[in-house]
Amino acid sequence: MFSVSVRDHFMIAHSFNGKVFGPAQKLHGATYVVDVEFKRRELDPDGIVIDIGRATDCLREVLGGLNFRNLDDEPAFRGKNTTTEFLAFVIFERIAAKAAAGELGAHAGGLLGLRVSLHESHVAWAAYEGALPR
Amino acid sequence: MFSVSVRDHFMIAHSFNGKVFGPAQKLHGATYVVDVEFKRRELDPDGIVIDIGRATDCLREVLGGLNFRNLDDEPAFRGKNTTTEFLAFVIFERIAAKAAAGELGAHAGGLLGLRVSLHESHVAWAAYEGALPR
Amino acid sequence: MFSVSVRDHFMIAHSFNGKVFGPAQKLHGATYVVDVEFKRRELDPDGIVIDIGRATDCLREVLGGLNFRNLDDEPAFRGKNTTTEFLAFVIFERIAAKAAAGELGAHAGGLLGLRVSLHESHVAWAAYEGALPR
Amino acid sequence: MFSVSVRDHFMIAHSFNGKVFGPAQKLHGATYVVDVEFKRRELDPDGIVIDIGRATDCLREVLGGLNFRNLDDEPAFRGKNTTTEFLAFVIFERIAAKAAAGELGAHAGGLLGLRVSLHESHVAWAAYEGALPR
Amino acid sequence: MFSVSVRDHFMIAHSFNGKVFGPAQKLHGATYVVDVEFKRRELDPDGIVIDIGRATDCLREVLGGLNFRNLDDEPAFRGKNTTTEFLAFVIFERIAAKAAAGELGAHAGGLLGLRVSLHESHVAWAAYEGALPR
Amino acid sequence: MFSVSVRDHFMIAHSFNGKVFGPAQKLHGATYVVDVEFKRRELDPDGIVIDIGRATDCLREVLGGLNFRNLDDEPAFRGKNTTTEFLAFVIFERIAAKAAAGELGAHAGGLLGLRVSLHESHVAWAAYEGALPR
Repeated sequence: MFSVSVRDHFMIAHSFNGKVFGPAQKLHGATYVVDVEFKRRELDPDGIVIDIGRATDCLREVLGGLNFRNLDDEPAFRGKNTTTEFLAFVIFERIAAKAAAGELGAHAGGLLGLRVSLHESHVAWAAYEGALPR
Repeated sequence: MFSVSVRDHFMIAHSFNGKVFGPAQKLHGATYVVDVEFKRRELDPDGIVIDIGRATDCLREVLGGLNFRNLDDEPAFRGKNTTTEFLAFVIFERIAAKAAAGELGAHAGGLLGLRVSLHESHVAWAAYEGALPR
Repeated sequence: MFSVSVRDHFMIAHSFNGKVFGPAQKLHGATYVVDVEFKRRELDPDGIVIDIGRATDCLREVLGGLNFRNLDDEPAFRGKNTTTEFLAFVIFERIAAKAAAGELGAHAGGLLGLRVSLHESHVAWAAYEGALPR
Repeated sequence: MFSVSVRDHFMIAHSFNGKVFGPAQKLHGATYVVDVEFKRRELDPDGIVIDIGRATDCLREVLGGLNFRNLDDEPAFRGKNTTTEFLAFVIFERIAAKAAAGELGAHAGGLLGLRVSLHESHVAWAAYEGALPR
Repeated sequence: MFSVSVRDHFMIAHSFNGKVFGPAQKLHGATYVVDVEFKRRELDPDGIVIDIGRATDCLREVLGGLNFRNLDDEPAFRGKNTTTEFLAFVIFERIAAKAAAGELGAHAGGLLGLRVSLHESHVAWAAYEGALPR
Repeated sequence: MFSVSVRDHFMIAHSFNGKVFGPAQKLHGATYVVDVEFKRRELDPDGIVIDIGRATDCLREVLGGLNFRNLDDEPAFRGKNTTTEFLAFVIFERIAAKAAAGELGAHAGGLLGLRVSLHESHVAWAAYEGALPR
């Protein structure tokens, strides 16, 4: 199995509902450093898993829909706790949708899966991994 | 599959038995930076894999049972080489026991597995990965 | 010149005033990974720059006064942009005050300076460096 | 599952063929920081996955066959794009051949797989993972 | 003293002249991960050292003049060994020129110095540090 | 000012004397990841600060005199606490001696200073910085 990974980041405010979150129930924020791993059984005729330029652009676009926001105000997340693991899934879904729409290039049809990791600090991170196509 | 990971460290002395270890047969020591990845199929009703505060406390307690010791003197490791990979397994077992005892919280019953990684330097690390419950 | 450094982090929400900040004028947030370097000409009689346990506790206390907050609501920062560089200075001042109050231990009188670095992402960080005593 | 990982690096020049590569069609170069993860179901009688000294030497030898070269001039890669993911596979194959030849030690027969990761920058990396024996 | 730092990277081919370089006399290449630290005595009225967006753009432009090239073919470097430390100086000079030309914004006149660091691998890096204005 | 830095590591056992050290008074150990920064005003005629191969060899030799030992048994450290900051100074002195003995090459006479940093974990490190020649 081959994979290619790219990294970018976004910065948001949010708060959580539920006693389990302790002081994180208050409005606070986070920088998330995001790694996306694109997986494929065989290389394409160019010798690549994916056009890394398109992969980078795709990740930037998806993170652009989250960056510099208060996630408590986002209709898409109403009634949800925007935890690190939840946001990993959100980003997975949005990249998967772009892959299905052909935005990652013709050969991206060969992608078998994605792993999205969000680092919230030097001592904590979370991930969602799933198969493609959705 | 979702996962959440936390990081902590411990510092020990030890020596190894066996020609394969060369100069590491002498008493020396190591800092181990430890990552524990908790895995789960679905998020719980709070939108989390695990209570990250409890996960952090659990890891600190387990490492507290190893930290600032000469592992050659520990009865639990008599006759064993406390290699990086062996210690990854020890930490896996001790966290798995705490999960089974309910110390990770009610929802931790949904945990499917753990991956424990120990970094011994900037150029070498080891891991043990196994399913839960044991 | 000797130095000892310790690392911790905090997570906040805030917004900035001024065209120069572009989309960061909206409420967003950040994880700041904070490094504090304590400097001293000579080691003390125990062979240390500072009691690293006290240094770690001191940093945790100072960051506890910032963590899990919306900095826009903090009276101490009224009329200020809580930029990364500004927060480095705030943390410098608060640690310097604790050092002056003797909270870093008797030998901390020998400290010549501090450098406080805040990493806001994998591609941007800021620092403030100053002499002690204030 | 147990694993042990070691890290080294190599520095090469190369160019790519194909419109998808944009400016990387010109002669340029890269530092690749290489991680090799050796996997095994159970520890051997010494308590290890692999002799880490031999693993390190093996990786150095394999990278020595690539280091300080213009890969466009290497007969082994004629007609191929030496992308990061392709080079991960090349290194996998060369280490697997050494394992099969007994160069990793007697117990290395227990190895179940390898994962080879190449970091080309702080924001991009690639990997190949496969089972042993080939 | 305040500072703000940003990171980016570039990938080039080159070779060195001189016995001291050993196998690096052959055509090879490198990824350089570049950190630029901008220094200033006091914060400007917005509470910043520099407009971080302009700093990032400035670094990208300067690295764009080096990226995806064979430095042996660059007239600017004729008769020079493009070592890591030499390239740190080149990047310093080019950013300093942009600062002098006003491309870093009006307040950038307050900059007192720059430190440019180039990481060529996980075990080697180099830097040039100098005062502004040139 | 120019600088070149190289990284290596060593692994030791030791214990400390003094109440300030708490549980670290017991025999334990550490991995130290060591960075040495070599400083020089101008580049030499080859365009370098120092022969990086010699610098790397020099660091490996110095660390070889410490690696895989119980520092409590070393005559050189009798009556001393081998703290991280103390060891940074020891390594500085040993490299400075090699520089003075010409082991870093003819041009190393131009070196103005060294900074030696020892990382004992992901959250703590220490350094000693001094001028050359001693």
